Amino acid sequence: MDDVLTGLLRPKGVAVIGASTTPGKIGHTVVKNLIESGYQGGIFPVNPSADEILGLKCYSSVLDIPDNVDAAAITVPAKFVLNVIKECGEKGVKGLIIITSGFSEVGDVELEKELVKTAHGYGMRILGPNVVGTLSNTDNMNASFAPFLPLKGSASLVSQSGALLIAIDAITYTRRIGFDKLVSIGNMSDVNFADMVAWLNEDEDTKCISLYVEGLKEGARFIKESAKAKKPIVVLKAGVSEHGAAAAASHTGSLAGAQKIYSAAFQQAGAIQASDLSDLFDCTLALSLEPPMKGDNLLILTNGGGVGVLATDSAEKAGVPLKFAPKEVQEELKKHMPSFGSAKNPVDMTGMAGNDWYHDTTKFSFANEWVDGLVVLYCETAMTNPQEIAESIYNAVKETGITDKPITVSFVGGERCDDAMQWLVENGIPAYNAPDLAVRAMGALREYARLHAMKQETKIENHAVDKKTARDIIAKVRADGRTALTEIESKKIFTAYDLPVVRTEIATSEDQAVDMAEEIGYPIVLKIVSPDILHKSDAGGVKVNIKDEASVRSAYQEILKNAKAYKADADIHGIVVQSMAPWGTEVIVGSVNDATFGATVMFGLGGIFVEVLKDVTFRVAPISEKEAALMLSEIKSAPILDGVRGESPRDKKMLAQTLAQYAFMITDLADEVQESDANPVLVYEEGKGVQIVDARMILKEK
Amino acid sequence: MDDVLTGLLRPKGVAVIGASTTPGKIGHTVVKNLIESGYQGGIFPVNPSADEILGLKCYSSVLDIPDNVDAAAITVPAKFVLNVIKECGEKGVKGLIIITSGFSEVGDVELEKELVKTAHGYGMRILGPNVVGTLSNTDNMNASFAPFLPLKGSASLVSQSGALLIAIDAITYTRRIGFDKLVSIGNMSDVNFADMVAWLNEDEDTKCISLYVEGLKEGARFIKESAKAKKPIVVLKAGVSEHGAAAAASHTGSLAGAQKIYSAAFQQAGAIQASDLSDLFDCTLALSLEPPMKGDNLLILTNGGGVGVLATDSAEKAGVPLKFAPKEVQEELKKHMPSFGSAKNPVDMTGMAGNDWYHDTTKFSFANEWVDGLVVLYCETAMTNPQEIAESIYNAVKETGITDKPITVSFVGGERCDDAMQWLVENGIPAYNAPDLAVRAMGALREYARLHAMKQETKIENHAVDKKTARDIIAKVRADGRTALTEIESKKIFTAYDLPVVRTEIATSEDQAVDMAEEIGYPIVLKIVSPDILHKSDAGGVKVNIKDEASVRSAYQEILKNAKAYKADADIHGIVVQSMAPWGTEVIVGSVNDATFGATVMFGLGGIFVEVLKDVTFRVAPISEKEAALMLSEIKSAPILDGVRGESPRDKKMLAQTLAQYAFMITDLADEVQESDANPVLVYEEGKGVQIVDARMILKEK
Repeated sequence: MDDVLTGLLRPKGVAVIGASTTPGKIGHTVVKNLIESGYQGGIFPVNPSADEILGLKCYSSVLDIPDNVDAAAITVPAKFVLNVIKECGEKGVKGLIIITSGFSEVGDVELEKELVKTAHGYGMRILGPNVVGTLSNTDNMNASFAPFLPLKGSASLVSQSGALLIAIDAITYTRRIGFDKLVSIGNMSDVNFADMVAWLNEDEDTKCISLYVEGLKEGARFIKESAKAKKPIVVLKAGVSEHGAAAAASHTGSLAGAQKIYSAAFQQAGAIQASDLSDLFDCTLALSLEPPMKGDNLLILTNGGGVGVLATDSAEKAGVPLKFAPKEVQEELKKHMPSFGSAKNPVDMTGMAGNDWYHDTTKFSFANEWVDGLVVLYCETAMTNPQEIAESIYNAVKETGITDKPITVSFVGGERCDDAMQWLVENGIPAYNAPDLAVRAMGALREYARLHAMKQETKIENHAVDKKTARDIIAKVRADGRTALTEIESKKIFTAYDLPVVRTEIATSEDQAVDMAEEIGYPIVLKIVSPDILHKSDAGGVKVNIKDEASVRSAYQEILKNAKAYKADADIHGIVVQSMAPWGTEVIVGSVNDATFGATVMFGLGGIFVEVLKDVTFRVAPISEKEAALMLSEIKSAPILDGVRGESPRDKKMLAQTLAQYAFMITDLADEVQESDANPVLVYEEGKGVQIVDARMILKEK
Repeated sequence: MDDVLTGLLRPKGVAVIGASTTPGKIGHTVVKNLIESGYQGGIFPVNPSADEILGLKCYSSVLDIPDNVDAAAITVPAKFVLNVIKECGEKGVKGLIIITSGFSEVGDVELEKELVKTAHGYGMRILGPNVVGTLSNTDNMNASFAPFLPLKGSASLVSQSGALLIAIDAITYTRRIGFDKLVSIGNMSDVNFADMVAWLNEDEDTKCISLYVEGLKEGARFIKESAKAKKPIVVLKAGVSEHGAAAAASHTGSLAGAQKIYSAAFQQAGAIQASDLSDLFDCTLALSLEPPMKGDNLLILTNGGGVGVLATDSAEKAGVPLKFAPKEVQEELKKHMPSFGSAKNPVDMTGMAGNDWYHDTTKFSFANEWVDGLVVLYCETAMTNPQEIAESIYNAVKETGITDKPITVSFVGGERCDDAMQWLVENGIPAYNAPDLAVRAMGALREYARLHAMKQETKIENHAVDKKTARDIIAKVRADGRTALTEIESKKIFTAYDLPVVRTEIATSEDQAVDMAEEIGYPIVLKIVSPDILHKSDAGGVKVNIKDEASVRSAYQEILKNAKAYKADADIHGIVVQSMAPWGTEVIVGSVNDATFGATVMFGLGGIFVEVLKDVTFRVAPISEKEAALMLSEIKSAPILDGVRGESPRDKKMLAQTLAQYAFMITDLADEVQESDANPVLVYEEGKGVQIVDARMILKEK
């Protein structure tokens, strides 16, 4: 565990620099909140013009404080902050909670960098600037200007929006969703989400890590730290719409990457994505109270067909579609329902179900080994008491002694149901006021198990490749003052990284073209190479299916003639002689160097699938072959790779291997390459592999 | 307004047949509920073995009641119901609320039919059987065994699940969503959703019609009545998943049609579809309090960037994506925010916004003519009072005097926010505890306006066609004892309905084939016609691109030879001589006769789009050309019709016309035709029309 961060987030003593005697001022509120929250560490107000604040001795400088100070909450105006940091450094403070705003979020990036540099010089870390502060129930510490400690709970939340953090603080009491720590992360000049995930993963009072993210910094490190985490992570990413991303950028100054890449990154990080604020709370509740759902068998119990049907619909949406329970399970379930009930799934005990049926059916179902997760629904009736039903469910679960299988509950009804659900939550069973929410929560528990399993299986292969050739080509392109590589250059780099590129050479004379064609083997393709002719086909610069020497010669001449007719003074580098790949299913593999995540790899089917349907999928590179195989399966047009309209299945194994190898290449060259693509890549039937027909690579502007 | 239904739903006197002296029995509860709800009409318990129930005189038969009885709530066991109905008929009762269960829902369909037949014989209507009853706040009437009248409101809800209705009754108080009427519709032996929509449309106490539907009966009539409605309709359809549909069927005995068709039907009905139970309440609240949003310009005001970004994301999902406000609007907005605020959209007044800024900005924005709908967000802060913010918003809206523009509000925070929101709702402004919900509610108000506009523009064209030819062909097929029409027969019917079918004849001799080819014009296609050869191409039974007489003759002979080689004793009806259509974009038009909705029409692009991507769209037939045009635009592969990869735009006008004409045909023949398709239909460039190349038609089993 990072001691400096522990000093920042769980300090033994806190200085409030800029402490004020005036109620309502932030520098006053923070002191007041520390006192009122019952914080047992030292509280040291710092203000040169006051002797005492709220009964505490006030110091004129942090350097005057006789005791140890782990953390300093800074509320002085922006222009004084740098000096305060230096004093904190001299004092030996570990962490700075910079509440003061007016830095990068209003455009002053340089000053903010200076703060970080200075703090790091003293070995200190910065939370913020532009934060509300940090709160910890375990430490009875409210080191913030949020009004009170949140409802106690076992999740911790990190928020990039301060206003939202304050609102969430109040919401914890009305929605009954508890947190141990609330951390406002502000401008993330230093401590960012990757740091917080790593630290919270070690924090024994945190069972679930909840994040409100507008834009990440150090995206690749965030993925790495999250993937290492042994706890569930649930994240609400704001700014997913185009307009929303613009709003987020103007609001935090953070660069919001493309939503598809963020979504892939969260998946790779093993983080569950919440769809909105309510969903963030709902998932947090389940993930902080229940174990993961380790298999696909979800059983739903209900006393009302209507809520059962609604829950069934949600099960499909939530990724845990229902199956009928096995016959012997159904036989047992039938014992606790009237003849017009249903022992299928959902199990409808009918409105006649009372405490005993709820108890016995819950107990049997929860203990049954076919069942991987149980959702118990209750629809308020005149004949039953919601509190008693809640207790019946609770007792049944406890009596089984099972703790490695999840249960979620939904009570649909009025105030008595709300009270009963609150009782359930306080006793450790997540309960929701609509059936779809209980099912969605179970879906999150299932997703957590799936993501966790995927993390275990994901191993990035290291590849022995000819890196020197690749670097030499890039150096030559840089020396030419170019950023765009030619097709030949791109293909040579691909080949150096062991990618299956169609054999391609460049000829500068007719005789050379013939020699190359003979060596490559017929049929071949000839293509003009000229920076002045981009649309080669339109210019008559491409000849395909050339089968003998005579045809090579005539095609060579014709291409040159056409090129000159197209543009008399075209700069012609030569003519490409290329093996003509037999027909295969066209796919596209590409990459962009994302500002947040670095190298990312894209996959999609060629033609209209990419152009019209935008049917593509992304990952942050590098990826394992297993992850690559997942990419092949998650595009909508995936069935085409399995063979449609009488075609045989395509070689997905080799395609996945190529995709992983490609991701390895662009990660390895991420310092140089901005974007690249292999388009088309032809995929042949199983066992016959793939061939990259055309290649493109663009270097970063330096 | 239907007087009989008014008698059923707003009776002046109610008999409770099967009234009981035993507390807890349904026959007792209904009497008690009528009394306790303050019902002012006559309450007449009927039970031959009691003199008095809850202080009311008890009658031994409904016939003994001296006063008028509009409605009878029936709770006697199933086997006595038929006799009770007869007595009610004699008495002149208008409507029967049959609470008793044990009819079609447990398989006894015949008895249920008998009830309806008997009731209709007396001019009575039946609600149920298997209902909870009906409740009306306007009439202070709880004629049900649900525990109390719901929270007062201006929406009315009809539920196909009784258990859910009881739960919703209680929920109205905790979620603060009011209803005027709650109606349990049960087995829908007689009164169904179409009846209820028609009646509620005339009910002056209902501003929004909310429906919980598991399966419709009389689907086409439901669409018709809904399309006529002058009020918003919001519907939650349960059983949308495959497994969910199975659960619904076992639970209500109603046949749940395919989700895609239901979804199309609701759109045609002009009904807004809720995604889950909470969404049903949220949409109902907005639709019962606010006018439709008549344009696309949504403005969002906020005091917190975070909730602003979340709202922006939701706006895209809710179908009301944000645009930046015009410059002059932004200039005005800037007056009420600090320099670091944002006057774009969302308008971020920052955490410094107090009552005055909220008031002034709301007032200006709501009155501004660019703004079609306003969402006001508030994130709880320490410096502001939620109740005062709520009052500021309310006053601002009232001061504008505007009532034809919608506003929704979200307060994010704790108990003080909840109280303030309750106050807003009680004062007629819909308020939600999460920003996405306020935006979704606005999306529903926008959708209502769009659907309403669409209804106005939808006119079904009547077509003068050759119905006799079509009917003659069908009669001949029936006479043959077949249900499958041949390609030629199908095409003749298509042609009779003015559909653009490729010219096709059937020849039974080589000479005849030549004559036909000469008349049709070259190039032509020849195809074998044999019930024994389904895969014509595999059998060598198809020859394309035939350009002269000699080729017709050789192709004719070769096809016959191949056919005999394929199956020596094949029954050969002849050889089709067909004009060879030039290449065009392939689409598919089809129809199925749905058990719930009758004739439905399907549209999609040919090949993998239908087979792999299932990229199709449905409508209940008939449809207008406008609606057909909408179908063309709503498939995912729609851009292909606009021309991709250098192709010119396709003739969408003619395609829409053909689709509408096709829908007209299958509606006209709905009594006979079970399914049909035109596949492929070739679509040419703009102005060049479409051609149906192949046709198929299957009659209903009779």
